[in-house]
Amino acid sequence: MTKMKIQIINGPNLNLLGKREPGLYGGMTFEDYLEFLEKTFPEVSFDYYQSNVEGEIINRIHETGFLYDGIILNPGGYTHTSVSIADAVSSVSAPVVEVHITNVAAREEFRHNSLVGRFCAGSVIGFGLDGYRLAVLALIEIKRKSSKG
Amino acid sequence: MTKMKIQIINGPNLNLLGKREPGLYGGMTFEDYLEFLEKTFPEVSFDYYQSNVEGEIINRIHETGFLYDGIILNPGGYTHTSVSIADAVSSVSAPVVEVHITNVAAREEFRHNSLVGRFCAGSVIGFGLDGYRLAVLALIEIKRKSSKG
Amino acid sequence: MTKMKIQIINGPNLNLLGKREPGLYGGMTFEDYLEFLEKTFPEVSFDYYQSNVEGEIINRIHETGFLYDGIILNPGGYTHTSVSIADAVSSVSAPVVEVHITNVAAREEFRHNSLVGRFCAGSVIGFGLDGYRLAVLALIEIKRKSSKG
Amino acid sequence: MTKMKIQIINGPNLNLLGKREPGLYGGMTFEDYLEFLEKTFPEVSFDYYQSNVEGEIINRIHETGFLYDGIILNPGGYTHTSVSIADAVSSVSAPVVEVHITNVAAREEFRHNSLVGRFCAGSVIGFGLDGYRLAVLALIEIKRKSSKG
Amino acid sequence: MTKMKIQIINGPNLNLLGKREPGLYGGMTFEDYLEFLEKTFPEVSFDYYQSNVEGEIINRIHETGFLYDGIILNPGGYTHTSVSIADAVSSVSAPVVEVHITNVAAREEFRHNSLVGRFCAGSVIGFGLDGYRLAVLALIEIKRKSSKG
Amino acid sequence: MTKMKIQIINGPNLNLLGKREPGLYGGMTFEDYLEFLEKTFPEVSFDYYQSNVEGEIINRIHETGFLYDGIILNPGGYTHTSVSIADAVSSVSAPVVEVHITNVAAREEFRHNSLVGRFCAGSVIGFGLDGYRLAVLALIEIKRKSSKG
Amino acid sequence: MTKMKIQIINGPNLNLLGKREPGLYGGMTFEDYLEFLEKTFPEVSFDYYQSNVEGEIINRIHETGFLYDGIILNPGGYTHTSVSIADAVSSVSAPVVEVHITNVAAREEFRHNSLVGRFCAGSVIGFGLDGYRLAVLALIEIKRKSSKG
Amino acid sequence: MTKMKIQIINGPNLNLLGKREPGLYGGMTFEDYLEFLEKTFPEVSFDYYQSNVEGEIINRIHETGFLYDGIILNPGGYTHTSVSIADAVSSVSAPVVEVHITNVAAREEFRHNSLVGRFCAGSVIGFGLDGYRLAVLALIEIKRKSSKG
Amino acid sequence: MTKMKIQIINGPNLNLLGKREPGLYGGMTFEDYLEFLEKTFPEVSFDYYQSNVEGEIINRIHETGFLYDGIILNPGGYTHTSVSIADAVSSVSAPVVEVHITNVAAREEFRHNSLVGRFCAGSVIGFGLDGYRLAVLALIEIKRKSSKG
Amino acid sequence: MTKMKIQIINGPNLNLLGKREPGLYGGMTFEDYLEFLEKTFPEVSFDYYQSNVEGEIINRIHETGFLYDGIILNPGGYTHTSVSIADAVSSVSAPVVEVHITNVAAREEFRHNSLVGRFCAGSVIGFGLDGYRLAVLALIEIKRKSSKG
Amino acid sequence: MTKMKIQIINGPNLNLLGKREPGLYGGMTFEDYLEFLEKTFPEVSFDYYQSNVEGEIINRIHETGFLYDGIILNPGGYTHTSVSIADAVSSVSAPVVEVHITNVAAREEFRHNSLVGRFCAGSVIGFGLDGYRLAVLALIEIKRKSSKG
Amino acid sequence: MTKMKIQIINGPNLNLLGKREPGLYGGMTFEDYLEFLEKTFPEVSFDYYQSNVEGEIINRIHETGFLYDGIILNPGGYTHTSVSIADAVSSVSAPVVEVHITNVAAREEFRHNSLVGRFCAGSVIGFGLDGYRLAVLALIEIKRKSSKG
Repeated sequence: MTKMKIQIINGPNLNLLGKREPGLYGGMTFEDYLEFLEKTFPEVSFDYYQSNVEGEIINRIHETGFLYDGIILNPGGYTHTSVSIADAVSSVSAPVVEVHITNVAAREEFRHNSLVGRFCAGSVIGFGLDGYRLAVLALIEIKRKSSKG
Repeated sequence: MTKMKIQIINGPNLNLLGKREPGLYGGMTFEDYLEFLEKTFPEVSFDYYQSNVEGEIINRIHETGFLYDGIILNPGGYTHTSVSIADAVSSVSAPVVEVHITNVAAREEFRHNSLVGRFCAGSVIGFGLDGYRLAVLALIEIKRKSSKG
Repeated sequence: MTKMKIQIINGPNLNLLGKREPGLYGGMTFEDYLEFLEKTFPEVSFDYYQSNVEGEIINRIHETGFLYDGIILNPGGYTHTSVSIADAVSSVSAPVVEVHITNVAAREEFRHNSLVGRFCAGSVIGFGLDGYRLAVLALIEIKRKSSKG
Repeated sequence: MTKMKIQIINGPNLNLLGKREPGLYGGMTFEDYLEFLEKTFPEVSFDYYQSNVEGEIINRIHETGFLYDGIILNPGGYTHTSVSIADAVSSVSAPVVEVHITNVAAREEFRHNSLVGRFCAGSVIGFGLDGYRLAVLALIEIKRKSSKG
Repeated sequence: MTKMKIQIINGPNLNLLGKREPGLYGGMTFEDYLEFLEKTFPEVSFDYYQSNVEGEIINRIHETGFLYDGIILNPGGYTHTSVSIADAVSSVSAPVVEVHITNVAAREEFRHNSLVGRFCAGSVIGFGLDGYRLAVLALIEIKRKSSKG
Repeated sequence: MTKMKIQIINGPNLNLLGKREPGLYGGMTFEDYLEFLEKTFPEVSFDYYQSNVEGEIINRIHETGFLYDGIILNPGGYTHTSVSIADAVSSVSAPVVEVHITNVAAREEFRHNSLVGRFCAGSVIGFGLDGYRLAVLALIEIKRKSSKG
Repeated sequence: MTKMKIQIINGPNLNLLGKREPGLYGGMTFEDYLEFLEKTFPEVSFDYYQSNVEGEIINRIHETGFLYDGIILNPGGYTHTSVSIADAVSSVSAPVVEVHITNVAAREEFRHNSLVGRFCAGSVIGFGLDGYRLAVLALIEIKRKSSKG
Repeated sequence: MTKMKIQIINGPNLNLLGKREPGLYGGMTFEDYLEFLEKTFPEVSFDYYQSNVEGEIINRIHETGFLYDGIILNPGGYTHTSVSIADAVSSVSAPVVEVHITNVAAREEFRHNSLVGRFCAGSVIGFGLDGYRLAVLALIEIKRKSSKG
Repeated sequence: MTKMKIQIINGPNLNLLGKREPGLYGGMTFEDYLEFLEKTFPEVSFDYYQSNVEGEIINRIHETGFLYDGIILNPGGYTHTSVSIADAVSSVSAPVVEVHITNVAAREEFRHNSLVGRFCAGSVIGFGLDGYRLAVLALIEIKRKSSKG
Repeated sequence: MTKMKIQIINGPNLNLLGKREPGLYGGMTFEDYLEFLEKTFPEVSFDYYQSNVEGEIINRIHETGFLYDGIILNPGGYTHTSVSIADAVSSVSAPVVEVHITNVAAREEFRHNSLVGRFCAGSVIGFGLDGYRLAVLALIEIKRKSSKG
Repeated sequence: MTKMKIQIINGPNLNLLGKREPGLYGGMTFEDYLEFLEKTFPEVSFDYYQSNVEGEIINRIHETGFLYDGIILNPGGYTHTSVSIADAVSSVSAPVVEVHITNVAAREEFRHNSLVGRFCAGSVIGFGLDGYRLAVLALIEIKRKSSKG
Repeated sequence: MTKMKIQIINGPNLNLLGKREPGLYGGMTFEDYLEFLEKTFPEVSFDYYQSNVEGEIINRIHETGFLYDGIILNPGGYTHTSVSIADAVSSVSAPVVEVHITNVAAREEFRHNSLVGRFCAGSVIGFGLDGYRLAVLALIEIKRKSSKG
């Protein structure tokens, strides 16, 4: 049986995860966390991509958004300003789940809106890295339902 | 070993779940879904409460927010207007996870802000009833970490 | 032939009608006015409910909104702030007619928007108690059309 | 006994009523509806005026606003922008009732305020053409009360 | 000589006073503080009411607002959102004094306006529980002046 | 010696001057006031025009704005909304003086801005009908300076 | 073969084209430009209408909007304020193309939105009089496609 | 016969008049202009005061606002920000006429509102120094009317 | 035993207290009221200062804000606009209590915010001159607590 | 004779044209459309560039904006948010024509402003791919005029 | 050779520098810092002025702004509200450099705009007292360039 | 002794410096200016980087922000829109100084806020290229203090 395919895309500054500001973002690198995800979900094949460049994130959404079973997207600071990433999310067929590590609603005013979120299948916000695990679970359920439907 | 205790609180109009507007909210009553949750999580004891009255929701948060391991709160229409529920969430010690069945960011403008969310441990938005399952998983993880910590 | 059934719901502070502030709201209690309505419309069976509690108004909309031929709703101060009552109106099948005794557009700025109104069949504003009579006439016409349709 | 005199004024684009966009505005011309009104209210003499020109509407309000028993005004798109029609309504002695065929609060944002409404005796919104009948009934009652008063 | 009668109404979450968050709200329960008030003002008969339900607060304002010499009202989170409590305050004859334990102007943006305050006789803000004592003194003075006037 | 030529244009509802609402606008008709102006300024030839129609006011500005020595314009309710009258004022060569009979800054919020005023030579606001006399004096001085310049 | 029929409507102040402010609007009258258009497009029959009156523009849209193959509309200053012209555009069957001679986005803030544009087939902005030629070409193409479709 | 007494108050930076920025404010000092005013109005006794200090302007309004026949006030930059000068104007009995040398509506956005103007008898804006002469004429007329009244 | 020292600072226009506008501000001068305060609180030494000049109020806050037991500050119109007085309040060690004679929340929109209040120990609003007595009582209590603490 | 050189730049997500969402954007790829353009305009040499990266679009504007006869720019989602692309457009010498395939004014609120448009020679909006042909025609005319000028 | 002359003006509350709140503003008085500046720049003659009074700051700008080689201005809280100081800066010929000790953009919302800054030669923000040294260096360079120019 | 290391990062369109728009940005290329900086500060080793790509700027901040003694950042148009660059600045340990060549506060409204500035050590705005020299001096002083501290 073929594995389910999930693309994880992390946006700007998330390459620093686990290396800097552990108080805010935790002390684990995303690479380590990815290993944990792979062990936890042996039935899923993960593809990981990080970029600080808005357009490269769009490229990746295009490349995988018609082929994969789902995308987990943490758009970082582009969440609040990128009409273009929002459009990319809206134009692909794979379900996209938005993840934020911190509770953005509890931070500065300019982080309170999500342009990208309105085109996502759903959002998981504020649970630290555990949000990615929850997002995987959400995508598995979405797939189960749609194959049943 | 004692079971983990989770209070689920559904706000206004959510008593109609599964009975009305299945197109928007799905065709299952919350009572049926609760059974599914109880089977899925035998290690958790669930308490379910629904009210259309803002103050009764506050009462329930007070009553269980110092005793339970977590609260799953879907504040419905009070999400966007209730400073008082936000204050209640902020004043209790149990972690509170906000759940929304629909993607509120994709609906009317007046549903885009969340007064309550900023005081929650995290939010799960837009996955239909499956959001409650994800919220339970989030609370289990929060408990695991804090008992380890 | 069975009578047409109309639920009248008055929101907060409208229990003081006719007792206080006759300059603004007139000198007749709603109970007296109800008698007048019943005499004027012998073909209609009226049910009257008043509450100052937002959630109780929602409850009543749920209880009668699938059974009655129409609801006449004066949400009082909740008009401008209650997403939850608006959602209740939107989720029931009976047509709901919004009534305001005073011309809210001529009062303070914070009374100028109507969250509830956008989900109503129509609105009657500013005619004093006579607005309830007009609302009954509107509901009779709505019923006539839909039974013909 | 002299008949009660009511001026009906329809603003811009309402000349297309019944001819275009029946889905939104219904399939009856206002001329046909006027016949129905005249039959329904034999005790009222109706005068009907339609113009797409803001200033001509003001002229008509001036001409009849000191002579007639009431004006029924559907200002169309001028509702939201015309300080001048609002001033005209405010300066005449006859009571003016605002009518809207559709529920403007459920349409685009720029249709949500009513500059004109704040100077009217009252408003009837969202009941289709039946709103004009309700407005007539409202004016009859206003006249009855003032002649009694 | 009959005692002066003052109704104290505390809104949502104020039942937790002295029990939780002593850093923000102090370490004394309101019941204990009430005893202090009663000893300090033997010439006043106090009635104390707390509710988390907006409509119950309105009910209480109605019940005592025509009988008592004054009301001391801490509307908690309803301060900023409740048109209905504001209307209730505006419709009773007893003077209502608004009390806030914390300096709301120094907290989040959404706590900066007071819908209720504009209809009160006056406001006492930011002095902790001592604000209630000052409010009693204000009401005594208001009574003295009006009985003299 | 040829007389100086001044066009006076009064906008919507100003035809009612002196006839209605003397409390707000005074008890003299503009026709009577015009006689006073003509007596006061025998060296000026006045042309008077009133219209409730925005486009007719624009027409008149075009017709006289290249021929007369000045225009005195009271745009009434169009002051706050008419980009088109503002454009007309901006496109003619004669100096245009804006006059308002009442102090618009002391009235409703929507009367506080002046789209038209930013393209005028100057504005005279709040002095009742005397504002027209002051505007004539201003235009005489403007002409004196420009013929000297 | 019958000619294609296009109505050109110019709004307020555009009668001054070529006569005044050549720096901003160019030195050619629209009448001269129309000759050029007629020579350039012998297969099109043009009808030209200019008015400074909002309602007359609406009238013209009504008169030709169900008979012609297309309308080219430069609403001038009404672009930004006229809900009524926008409604007229929305209610006719002919495609309407909005033209602006200058780049309105580069001018004052109050010229940045277009109420009318949202109901047009498309907009051509900032190319001087050449915008009308482009609009004709756009309408020809729209017709070609729809007759093919 | 006693002379009419008028206090002229110029606010911040107006001491530089005629000395600096002649392009914007003209080339005459206010002292020279005052001589012209005194010659033009021999029946008026002028008192001139200039200060850059907000509170000193308030002091002067207090000192003369109960004794003089009128005040001509150019509040300069305080026009847009000073609630305190507005309060001073509102509290004195003499009529206050606001003068601005330049057309403030044609300058930066933050110069478009006038806090002070709403409490003035009237405003004269944009006529250069000639605005002071017009203001004197306005005050003479106000006095004439009130002594007649 | 040394007396407690309290500085009272009244801002702009409050020198007119009791002399002008008794309807709004009462008929007693502050000097008379001060005598009453001194009699009522023999254990307190009062220092009174009034100025219309923003900077002089800042000076006085600096001079006494490190020496006195408390400051009672009525910033008048500077309440809403003075970042500088707010900064002065924030920089001194003595507790500052804000007093307003009228209920500012019930007046014009521009009086609804308080820049100064956010840095004060607390605020007493709307009780007329009695607010100063309440402020003294508040400061006595603040001192009692801090000397105990 | 040398050909006219036009650079076409398409922004984010426009690489999906013709492949996805044909309902909104049409069923033709831009590469196919480019062939059509090249056949239609043999006198023009086209250079086509598409990128999802904001900075690469800026780079291309720099590279060709001083060498080509014109740029046709569809900035996609960057239209509304990119000050940097706007600055690039403003700094090059070639005329830039903005093209949008859909009528952005008829879509979400956040698509209604154009930061980029204010620095363009003109804009063509809402005509589908035909907008590019119109833009070419506009640039040819701009060139013709400037070589004549 | 004559020394370069620089006027340093510190606004409200800056007299407390070094004395209070060293955590925010540092522990050195400005007088001490001035000595350091004088030693560092022997070729510059410094004049130092501090006032809490807005108008006195304006006076000083007038007195030195036409004579000195430059002004270093820290307007303190007046930065955000003083149109009058902004006008003073704009009217003098000497270049004015704005200095802020703290990073105002990182503080409260109401400190984010600078009315004064838009008329300054430049701004130095957030470097503590060192900002004054940088401002001197900036003025020396400005002088060098202009004497060369 | 090792040299101090400073990374200079210039954002979008700054590659055109000295080549285009010398009126606004001056006539010197940044490469030439860099030579001047290197001569002026022999004790500093400069690294220069320019990119038009938002994400590449973030990359460079990451690469040098933990290794260098300071970063001088001119974010160009990203200043006002890039939450992501602001986050990058906030996450590195080196002090970042924001430089703007022009006085952005004196330009268009959309250039008035600085998202990036709030996380910088300080800002130098409006001094042309000289701002970079001042920024170097600021960083040298920051280093001197921190090595002393």
